[in-house]
Amino acid sequence: MNNYKLTIQYDGTNYAGWQIQNNAATIQQTIIEKIKILLKEDVNLIGSGRTDAGVHAWGQVANFRTDSQIKVEKFRYSLNSLLPSDINIKSIENVAESFHARFDAKRRSYMYIISKEQSPFYLNYSYFFTKIKNLNIFKLNELNSVLLNEHDFTSFARKNTETKNKICTVYNIKWRETEDFVIFFVEANRFLHGMVKTLVGTILELGFENYDKNKLNEILKAKNRESAGKAFPSKGLFLFKVRY
Amino acid sequence: MNNYKLTIQYDGTNYAGWQIQNNAATIQQTIIEKIKILLKEDVNLIGSGRTDAGVHAWGQVANFRTDSQIKVEKFRYSLNSLLPSDINIKSIENVAESFHARFDAKRRSYMYIISKEQSPFYLNYSYFFTKIKNLNIFKLNELNSVLLNEHDFTSFARKNTETKNKICTVYNIKWRETEDFVIFFVEANRFLHGMVKTLVGTILELGFENYDKNKLNEILKAKNRESAGKAFPSKGLFLFKVRY
Repeated sequence: MNNYKLTIQYDGTNYAGWQIQNNAATIQQTIIEKIKILLKEDVNLIGSGRTDAGVHAWGQVANFRTDSQIKVEKFRYSLNSLLPSDINIKSIENVAESFHARFDAKRRSYMYIISKEQSPFYLNYSYFFTKIKNLNIFKLNELNSVLLNEHDFTSFARKNTETKNKICTVYNIKWRETEDFVIFFVEANRFLHGMVKTLVGTILELGFENYDKNKLNEILKAKNRESAGKAFPSKGLFLFKVRY
Repeated sequence: MNNYKLTIQYDGTNYAGWQIQNNAATIQQTIIEKIKILLKEDVNLIGSGRTDAGVHAWGQVANFRTDSQIKVEKFRYSLNSLLPSDINIKSIENVAESFHARFDAKRRSYMYIISKEQSPFYLNYSYFFTKIKNLNIFKLNELNSVLLNEHDFTSFARKNTETKNKICTVYNIKWRETEDFVIFFVEANRFLHGMVKTLVGTILELGFENYDKNKLNEILKAKNRESAGKAFPSKGLFLFKVRY
């Protein structure tokens, strides 16, 4: 049995997320269909995790097992020519049979991109939030310490999420600023459904309430989604990298 | 009479260029229609120059004269909310009545973006040219001196162009490289139809012919479009800035 690891970029704008669904175009489904054309086989394509409708990936990772022997560069080329232009396979590697894109992932990181100016060029890849100009990135970064390390992130997870375990370990968290953008970066062992978008919405709201660190701590400790702020839109969110 | 200067960004993907045409969506037409909704008036919107079908603008400049008094920031906001999201008015200024976006422009600059890797995120905003990896940016830059200063650029203009005067003065020309892109930048007093796309195509072809400076000089001196290479696609081209 061969096991192939794929690194995948996608523009999530026109998809109902990663995970296969009935009656909706998804990334996973689209890739499986094209692999079937090449290998004449229904593969089980395992992603490192789901991404929501409209969320993008700079470096999603997935794997599938097959008895077929694949010439990886030729296969990557063929697969990309079958895939729509909003999905691109960056690399394919033959990996150990035991490799599992979800269970073996040690760290995942996300970026959330906020644009300071409206622009046709990054319309679908950032969220235009005019009030961001009134916030101080240095002071936003002072809130990070509340969220670092191991916590129960129930307050930042979608209420109807199926996951029982709400404990996540945050390794890195950072706001940075460029001429046109404010970018939120967060790396953790795992993320809950809607977590990054809700973190961004909540932290920015606190920015307008004098960067209140205690308030953020109270929200976290409440373990109640209603204590947190509103989730920001998917269009600014990128699954950045998965580390194994 | 008031005279208003607009700085405009647009994603040219879905337009037949700047200039009004019958039976095709153009940038100029689209903006004029929305101004008419706000001012109840058909304005003459003068662009700094035309851009071809599919070419983008980072900073196109245009002006129009009107008897109406406009509150510029409020007007800009209203106009942007009427415009489709692929056109964005970056600024509006009240300028001297004599200001003319085309005749007063001293320098125009263009960027041509070539992507080294295929990616869904810059698909419409760059040209994916896989062979660019085999070229040396330092050596490409050594060809620039042939094109700098005043020359007849007939060899690089579309054959059916209406413009009689083919003399352009090139002030700046530069190739640079980032992790994902190779970017060609050129600034001149004026450009001929198709000139930047043909310069890029021709210079890169010469890259594969040992960066032959004499050959580039021969092409320029030939004053014949057939001596030059093929034009690169519009999707990588941006009208970057217009200086007055």
